[in-house]
Amino acid sequence: MPTTEPDGLSATLRLAMDLIRRPSVTPDDAGCQALMIERLERLGFRIERLPFGDVENFWAMRGHHGPILAFAGHTDVVPSGPETQWQYPPFEPRIDSQGMLCGRGAADMKGSLAAMITAVERFIDAHPDHPGRLAFLITSDEEGPAVDGTRAVVEHLREANERLDYCIVGEPSSTRYIGDMIKNGRRGSLGGVLRVQGIQGHVAYPQLARNPIHETAPALDALTREHWDDGNAFFPATSLQISNIRAGTGATNVIPGELEAVFNFRYSTEVTHEQLKERTHRLLDAHGLDYHLDWTLNGEPFLTAEGELVDAALAGVEAVTGRRPTLSTAGGTSDGRFIATLGAQVVELGPLNTTIHKIDERVRAADLDRLSDIYVAILERLFLKECL
Amino acid sequence: MPTTEPDGLSATLRLAMDLIRRPSVTPDDAGCQALMIERLERLGFRIERLPFGDVENFWAMRGHHGPILAFAGHTDVVPSGPETQWQYPPFEPRIDSQGMLCGRGAADMKGSLAAMITAVERFIDAHPDHPGRLAFLITSDEEGPAVDGTRAVVEHLREANERLDYCIVGEPSSTRYIGDMIKNGRRGSLGGVLRVQGIQGHVAYPQLARNPIHETAPALDALTREHWDDGNAFFPATSLQISNIRAGTGATNVIPGELEAVFNFRYSTEVTHEQLKERTHRLLDAHGLDYHLDWTLNGEPFLTAEGELVDAALAGVEAVTGRRPTLSTAGGTSDGRFIATLGAQVVELGPLNTTIHKIDERVRAADLDRLSDIYVAILERLFLKECL
Ligand SMILES: [Zn+2]
Ligand SMILES: [Zn+2]
Repeated sequence: MPTTEPDGLSATLRLAMDLIRRPSVTPDDAGCQALMIERLERLGFRIERLPFGDVENFWAMRGHHGPILAFAGHTDVVPSGPETQWQYPPFEPRIDSQGMLCGRGAADMKGSLAAMITAVERFIDAHPDHPGRLAFLITSDEEGPAVDGTRAVVEHLREANERLDYCIVGEPSSTRYIGDMIKNGRRGSLGGVLRVQGIQGHVAYPQLARNPIHETAPALDALTREHWDDGNAFFPATSLQISNIRAGTGATNVIPGELEAVFNFRYSTEVTHEQLKERTHRLLDAHGLDYHLDWTLNGEPFLTAEGELVDAALAGVEAVTGRRPTLSTAGGTSDGRFIATLGAQVVELGPLNTTIHKIDERVRAADLDRLSDIYVAILERLFLKECL
Repeated sequence: MPTTEPDGLSATLRLAMDLIRRPSVTPDDAGCQALMIERLERLGFRIERLPFGDVENFWAMRGHHGPILAFAGHTDVVPSGPETQWQYPPFEPRIDSQGMLCGRGAADMKGSLAAMITAVERFIDAHPDHPGRLAFLITSDEEGPAVDGTRAVVEHLREANERLDYCIVGEPSSTRYIGDMIKNGRRGSLGGVLRVQGIQGHVAYPQLARNPIHETAPALDALTREHWDDGNAFFPATSLQISNIRAGTGATNVIPGELEAVFNFRYSTEVTHEQLKERTHRLLDAHGLDYHLDWTLNGEPFLTAEGELVDAALAGVEAVTGRRPTLSTAGGTSDGRFIATLGAQVVELGPLNTTIHKIDERVRAADLDRLSDIYVAILERLFLKECL
């Protein structure tokens, strides 16, 4: 049961509101990490601050032996948008009459950060000499370029030969009730910017021009019809989406000289990004295009198919909510993609994602207490198997 | 031989320079028409000023019986662009050391207007009682929207039951030497703006979206591959060009909700614009698109295949230059498309078009004297067959 503070709020809600009150729009941490560090130092965590560029990060660890479970998350939030469109000011958290905690970051992911801290506090309080080690990997740039954030911290850990066994990322994974879905992997994301060169001209003299729209249309059609793979038990089939296309000067009588198309692969573990690139080039070459193609690998796919962490997460959620979660690899990318490269088992487990990045972001206040309970239940199952 | 004025300039060059000196950027006439009207009234032309909106037009006629030949043209010019990029100020005409008349409008089409006036002056001077009638149809909006210009004057003439037998439009039709090409028709121009509706979404959840780029690509490919007709002896095959395409928010992870494509048909007399529209709709419907299509008929095709005017123009040019012109219907649209609807035979015949609408527009000064000679030769062949 959550501790209740003198103001009637649970420790988790009180900390969540303290974090929301700090307007930490990416990459500004606005003092959130100091708040977390203060709590963790009190518990005996050793803190390593790891600022990179204008991004603040920290790595914290408690204990000296045994498997490491890290909680991972971000203190930064996306911009609020026009504050006047919010029912309540985005950085003045409150619990409304429906019991919803309102404010930017309530769901993504200051609520999770608070639940992690209080879960660890309660777990250590009950089992001060638990086996294994606890860690935190916190960044202030998950919503931004995400270059100097978790990625950089992970590289630092790799160079320091730091092993990581388990990682719980606090991203809002739930869809209808708290804990109904756990993300145990993510598809890869590979981006491409295609520039097709034509020859500009006048529509009345097409024989003097080469229209890149005409030349590219069949190639784009072929790209979107291509069957990249069938997916597998854990991943849906690889999919390609063209997100942007642009050609033309605006003038209706000018044949444009160039076309630009932006596309994105979400891909399964059945193909590699090298294969996708090669097949794309082969297809474009077959259409005789004069093109240039820039690739960006946003993240390779990762999967935590089975093992102690998934077992503990499924059982922990079921113990608290009475319902067994489903596992999913759908959705966008997260910092889990970087952490997985350390060889860790990684799951994402957090509150409902229905209002994230939106006006009036909110989360059921009771869900955050529930989430803290779930995190405790997972810790118990991972570290205290003999107690269960 | 051209008359030479006291300043050493021919009457044609002197008038052309007087016209260029008036900065008549569309739709501003800047006093050009007053200059022409003064000369025409002196010759006994009856002037009908026909302003529509902010466009100045006039219709002038001399004579009372017999076939009517009208010279048609425009006093407006396109903007000069940055004057500092010009070798000489665009509205301060001069003849450079290479014998080129430089200035905005020198080629398109104040040179032609001057040649028309001096040709008529010389023809009337030599044959004051010639059979037939001479006319001028002049506008100050050919380079702009062209709604209140020649089109409106033609509607006025149609309502007044004015017949028109022959029309020489002074557009710069020549390509390498003066009179090498006569335009005896123009293809039709039909524009379309296609808006395809999809459903916006996130690239990670394509099953919740409908990507209009994916849906439109095969339809555009089919449109550009469609064989619309074979053209005929006078027209090349009908061609479609997509000039602009645009979809996407700029974000690389958002599936756009709408796509816009702009296209233009240049079409022969083997199809009608109704047929083109119907076939386009049929093709888009076959691809199951949710779309809206706005059409603009810029001009129907016209053709003056044979007859007295083409014969006189070919013979007149050959008599002056010693070389027989070629006939062509290629290129953009012109006001000839409106005049042809009166049932007139229409040709376009003017100076070289290499520098029109460009910085440092220029035309060989001697060519304008030649053009005046050509116009006289055509008048003689049309009206004075017995003299030849
Ligand atoms: Zn997040
Ligand atoms: Zn013109």
